[in-house]
Amino acid sequence: MRVGNKNYRTVWMKGSSVFLIEQNLLPFKFKIYESKTYKDTCKAIKSMLVRGAGAIGAAAGFAMAQAFLQKINIEKARKEICATRPTAQNLFFAVERVLRAENPVKEAQSIADQDAEYCRKIGEFGNKLIKDGYNIETHCNAGWLAFVDYGTALAPIYSAKSSGKKVFVYVDETRPRSQGAKLTAWELLNEKINFFIIPDNAGAYLMSQGKIDIMIVGSDRIAANGDAANKIGTFEKAICAKEFGIPFYVAAPTSTFDIKCKSGKDIPIEIRSEDEILYQTGLTKKGKLETIEVCAPGSKAFNPSFDVTPAKFISGIITEKGIIKPNASSIKCLLKGGK
Amino acid sequence: MRVGNKNYRTVWMKGSSVFLIEQNLLPFKFKIYESKTYKDTCKAIKSMLVRGAGAIGAAAGFAMAQAFLQKINIEKARKEICATRPTAQNLFFAVERVLRAENPVKEAQSIADQDAEYCRKIGEFGNKLIKDGYNIETHCNAGWLAFVDYGTALAPIYSAKSSGKKVFVYVDETRPRSQGAKLTAWELLNEKINFFIIPDNAGAYLMSQGKIDIMIVGSDRIAANGDAANKIGTFEKAICAKEFGIPFYVAAPTSTFDIKCKSGKDIPIEIRSEDEILYQTGLTKKGKLETIEVCAPGSKAFNPSFDVTPAKFISGIITEKGIIKPNASSIKCLLKGGK
Repeated sequence: MRVGNKNYRTVWMKGSSVFLIEQNLLPFKFKIYESKTYKDTCKAIKSMLVRGAGAIGAAAGFAMAQAFLQKINIEKARKEICATRPTAQNLFFAVERVLRAENPVKEAQSIADQDAEYCRKIGEFGNKLIKDGYNIETHCNAGWLAFVDYGTALAPIYSAKSSGKKVFVYVDETRPRSQGAKLTAWELLNEKINFFIIPDNAGAYLMSQGKIDIMIVGSDRIAANGDAANKIGTFEKAICAKEFGIPFYVAAPTSTFDIKCKSGKDIPIEIRSEDEILYQTGLTKKGKLETIEVCAPGSKAFNPSFDVTPAKFISGIITEKGIIKPNASSIKCLLKGGK
Repeated sequence: MRVGNKNYRTVWMKGSSVFLIEQNLLPFKFKIYESKTYKDTCKAIKSMLVRGAGAIGAAAGFAMAQAFLQKINIEKARKEICATRPTAQNLFFAVERVLRAENPVKEAQSIADQDAEYCRKIGEFGNKLIKDGYNIETHCNAGWLAFVDYGTALAPIYSAKSSGKKVFVYVDETRPRSQGAKLTAWELLNEKINFFIIPDNAGAYLMSQGKIDIMIVGSDRIAANGDAANKIGTFEKAICAKEFGIPFYVAAPTSTFDIKCKSGKDIPIEIRSEDEILYQTGLTKKGKLETIEVCAPGSKAFNPSFDVTPAKFISGIITEKGIIKPNASSIKCLLKGGK
């Protein structure tokens, strides 16, 4: 997607180098990191210089390819890469694929291309839900920065724009980490799509005023029955959307489905540090990054970072194979290769 | 209420001086401002050194009393005081009462006492809804800082604690101005009541996990049919509370009812500056107040600062005269002097 006047992916390989957008500097600084060894790519994954399921998978595939090019003991490299983010499903998947390939570099490339292509297709299918002039609300960042290109929840919006439709996006700030205000806003600015950041509190009000035509969010994991885990607050928006009869869609590649989880109850919720709530990081007027305390000093906070939206609140799931209903039989059929 | 080891009101008069807690310095600094003239008290109201309906009313009453003591042309003083916050109902009410009183100082004092007493009664009535061990969620700051003492939404919590009940409070951060994280948290810390600040996004998740027993919020204006305007996000919480069958109460003195508004549709919603969303103010590690940009630079934001919760989402309204159902006949009866 666009950054300024150029097209970028979040991660790519050229020669024996892997190039990554330094996402931990966004939205305040745009910089490309060149990783010359598989070890440096490992460090980039571990330090969250690269983030998001798809982007991490692609980076891990490229790291394996680098290890082959460097003629490293491949079992050792494999273990090191797998240890960088021990809960990232896409990472293991990519590592195994490259490990078994005849041409590791080509395979790693194809993993990245496939990620981008799946997201492009999610965009195409999702675009069918968007009418000209639509106001779309989204939560958190499920844009191209979390994948190799296009993204999931934002892909239909990009596709709608390319196909000539006028769209307007209401971007939930998405406290506590503010991925909406920081990353989604940054993507939309670069794509020249009009938007407002709104406080997470403003959703129901805007919906009640008829200001939202459709809501599209991403997902971190979808259970066999269609319950979908995503950034904290997604559930609240889904409840409000249902109250006002507003279509609520989840956009995710089929790799997001985890049929080992029968329902959302089987998806563990990560509780993160209270400091994410008590402190905020941003830019001072002098252009310096600064962290400030934004609460009564001495307060404690509770920070569940995900919630699970039950299937009954979800209008449909937009995948690279098409849009399905969030129920067990549709999901089974989708994963068997049907739609 | 308590600040450290002492009891305070937000505003009081002693001799010819009016004393005010400098609320614009909270939660980072606790300081008392001594205003020696009615003009300085006007400035304090105008600059939002004092805030909240009840506290502003009391301060305006004291300002009038000061004008009398200073032997100022009283019509001139009245106009000046009324111009400080032209939408504050309680301010005009207090000014008129003192103007017509035989003993202005005594009358101003009685306005402040009455505000405190009404809030204390709201606390007593609301306490009946709270069982030992309850987890209570609240939004924004409807505590004693907004009144002369006790507050509205927090008054039942203070009353429950005094009566020996164990309570735990989930404090919505309340973006964009974070009155929950800054002011409510500050009050609870001083009253030694246990609480967690939570991101506004976490409400539905906590409710779904059975973590919330009751939700109590304040209100800025209540229409004749029971629709209640309050800080943005209140409506969203009310929808979620209903979804999970959690009692949702509004606490407010009868002066909050505005029967000229037939329903919530007649209550105008203030749209405030986008800067409240795009920037945040807090304390650096060096203890300096700093304002930082917390979004992708160049973003625009939309900042509706209130929403209206329709009566059907409200379990009851806690007033100084008792708890009523949010409907036209109960409200009419209440305002006629019944319950």
